[in-house]
Amino acid sequence: MNLYRILVVVPLILFLSHFNSLSQIKDTTKSKLYEGEARRIIAEGLKTCQAYRMLEDLSLNIGPRLVGSPQAAKAVEWGKQKMESLGFQNVHTEPCTVPHWVRGAVEEASIITTRGESISINICALGGSIATPEDGIYAEILQVKSFDDLKTLGEEANGKIIFFNRPMDPSKISPGEAYGGAVNQRGSGAVEAAKAGGVAALIRSMTMQLDDVPHTGSMHYMDTIPKVPAAAISTMGANMLDSLLAIDKNLKIKIKLSCQTLPDIESANVIGELTGTEKPEEVIVIGGHLDSWDQGHGAHDDGAGCVHSIEALRLLKELGLRPKRTIRVVLFMNEEFGLNGGIAYAKEDHHGEKHICAIETDAGGFTPRGFGVGADSVNFPRFARWSYLLDPIDAGRITRGGGGADISELAKLGVITIGLRVDGQRYFDYHHSGNDTIDKVHPRELELGAIAIAIFSYAIAQEGI
Amino acid sequence: MNLYRILVVVPLILFLSHFNSLSQIKDTTKSKLYEGEARRIIAEGLKTCQAYRMLEDLSLNIGPRLVGSPQAAKAVEWGKQKMESLGFQNVHTEPCTVPHWVRGAVEEASIITTRGESISINICALGGSIATPEDGIYAEILQVKSFDDLKTLGEEANGKIIFFNRPMDPSKISPGEAYGGAVNQRGSGAVEAAKAGGVAALIRSMTMQLDDVPHTGSMHYMDTIPKVPAAAISTMGANMLDSLLAIDKNLKIKIKLSCQTLPDIESANVIGELTGTEKPEEVIVIGGHLDSWDQGHGAHDDGAGCVHSIEALRLLKELGLRPKRTIRVVLFMNEEFGLNGGIAYAKEDHHGEKHICAIETDAGGFTPRGFGVGADSVNFPRFARWSYLLDPIDAGRITRGGGGADISELAKLGVITIGLRVDGQRYFDYHHSGNDTIDKVHPRELELGAIAIAIFSYAIAQEGI
Repeated sequence: MNLYRILVVVPLILFLSHFNSLSQIKDTTKSKLYEGEARRIIAEGLKTCQAYRMLEDLSLNIGPRLVGSPQAAKAVEWGKQKMESLGFQNVHTEPCTVPHWVRGAVEEASIITTRGESISINICALGGSIATPEDGIYAEILQVKSFDDLKTLGEEANGKIIFFNRPMDPSKISPGEAYGGAVNQRGSGAVEAAKAGGVAALIRSMTMQLDDVPHTGSMHYMDTIPKVPAAAISTMGANMLDSLLAIDKNLKIKIKLSCQTLPDIESANVIGELTGTEKPEEVIVIGGHLDSWDQGHGAHDDGAGCVHSIEALRLLKELGLRPKRTIRVVLFMNEEFGLNGGIAYAKEDHHGEKHICAIETDAGGFTPRGFGVGADSVNFPRFARWSYLLDPIDAGRITRGGGGADISELAKLGVITIGLRVDGQRYFDYHHSGNDTIDKVHPRELELGAIAIAIFSYAIAQEGI
Repeated sequence: MNLYRILVVVPLILFLSHFNSLSQIKDTTKSKLYEGEARRIIAEGLKTCQAYRMLEDLSLNIGPRLVGSPQAAKAVEWGKQKMESLGFQNVHTEPCTVPHWVRGAVEEASIITTRGESISINICALGGSIATPEDGIYAEILQVKSFDDLKTLGEEANGKIIFFNRPMDPSKISPGEAYGGAVNQRGSGAVEAAKAGGVAALIRSMTMQLDDVPHTGSMHYMDTIPKVPAAAISTMGANMLDSLLAIDKNLKIKIKLSCQTLPDIESANVIGELTGTEKPEEVIVIGGHLDSWDQGHGAHDDGAGCVHSIEALRLLKELGLRPKRTIRVVLFMNEEFGLNGGIAYAKEDHHGEKHICAIETDAGGFTPRGFGVGADSVNFPRFARWSYLLDPIDAGRITRGGGGADISELAKLGVITIGLRVDGQRYFDYHHSGNDTIDKVHPRELELGAIAIAIFSYAIAQEGI
């Protein structure tokens, strides 16, 4: 074998063999049902990655879309215009009333050591938090890892700022599961702090990433418990605070927040569809949520889900694939803060339509792995049978159990709900924070999500269940 | 249902249902073979993500490791010390002779319009290229998309710099397949340019990302064809050049390169193992390549593969999992530029050992999807049977066909060769360029690759084939 073959051809062929095995499209003369359509959808999507172009537009020209904000209102208009410009059918908005919490201009915290040194730290108010008094809250810190710890400490919590510092458990495979094991601190920290006599709650950000960016998210109060302010501290800030507390037990913190809740406001879901050619009254919903938190761009959460859904329908339209049943994009308003859009959509009289399933994408714009289908053992195989169409993009893992927050009201009405499953390892690095920006989204990974939804929804639209 | 449940509990549960379906570890009393061990490996790995710590060390304290360079020599020492410090057995190096090409201090290019304007562009010499004359090469540009195009143009190529500008085809699902469809321009561009009478070759970087970073890689000459210099131009540079050529056909480029090939030099593979407790003479190789290109950190290519392999063995050792057959880490020297390490390892007299398989990881530190196994139909199921151990981390897709460049010589000796398959959408964004830095690697994604190799190699070591 000559030098050229040794040096170039052999390593190249072997190197490529890693990758070629990923390409599963077989050039068989006898295709299985919808394999040709799937192949065309894949090639068309990857060729131009339009989902990313749309997400750039949403992220950079509108930005984060906190429910009730002017940007959220602009996003409603954006969604409607986008779907109209793409020639979708029955494009319209459906109104819903949403809460209107606003982050204040003041959001400050400093650690004050017993020697009087002051260390400024990054915090951000949790969604729904009340403000501090204008002069702030200045108090000693009590660090706890759990609500049980807090109860055990009894009187010690009195008058203190309670610092909830239980990290997400990194040994969990699924970051979502690790999130589930920690997020009660964020949701209920203020209530538990107040119950124990605390004056504020400071919560470790819900991420496994070590950085100085606080992650917001919703929290709640209870009518019977005094309301105290609640803010997130970054993971680096939390670790520093923990280290400082180890050498200085009487550290104090000063927190100032000027957030507030304004009266409810009108907003809307945005809807567009390809009406079914044979059974228009049978509807497959595909959707994500148009609102986001007010940090970053809301790119992965859930700008990605919105453009996934629009792009899925665009691909079908572009390729002239007219579905027999209606495929409807719903951009839901306010997933983050009360599900008003999801509730409104489920209540709306849709003229005797039958929703045969609803697919939500709200786990970020990462490489798709498959779908989680919330169907019983009779219906599940009617969805799982399409996995071979998704295998070429390695997204054919269709598993039982799944849905989404926005479509949970539809689930209560008996609609089968489905969630797009993606590679979730990076999701909480960005989630609800200033890190959730367009540059964290990969054009091809995002597009593959749209492609997966296009293929899956089209097959369901053609064959029903 | 009260407000709290509506606002917090319901969305949370539904939201988490996306993620929980990813967590496949079942708490069954009756485990399948090695499920317990796999579970422990997963939890141990994710808890501390040691692979990333090692890769940080290699990337930041040694940096890129071009074969023959002082950094490559340091990396050999690093690998040996790392394996010794982890308590691996039989840690040693095995020598091999490698080529020694060095990038010069001068690497410049400017586009000169017919109106005399000069536009500086980023280029980098391809590995193996000769230098330009000291004054550079100044010539008109001829843009082509293929070698056939070039042949068709005949005399027109005479005296020109041939600009090979065929992009990787984005409609391919696998970026590796798209790479395969474009990379002959890089490997053979200089030969084809010279055959046509051209004086240099300028090649569009092998990436689908649009940025201003040129990507290097190996190229070759032929003894019977004059040698001309070859350099990569970034994708943005290539697009700009294409646009300029559309309005100014007589553009010239001036290129200066001072790279050179020095005499061959001694280097080495680095080896360490857990010796089998029952059949030490039966060996499973796991490995990546220690050399890299001289741009970026060589983090994904193939620092990731090196630390995948070391970390896989560390996990087994840490958990007290003593394999019945030997699992051996081999950090191969010079995958990029001639496979000397792989050839040397295959030639080495390993004292009557039997290599039952070799697993290479050289596709980046991304989330693992499975393994490609280069076994026949009889042997394939003996590997595929372990997919259930990998399903909990969504890496259970074991497919036929696979291997790696470094282990290709072992394949020729009849050893079954296997490649780790990962999510490859981002690989060529970084590959062979200044973009391939440690910050592009995710600690958990990287660790999951090490975990996959640990689980798979352990099961093979226990049960053989």
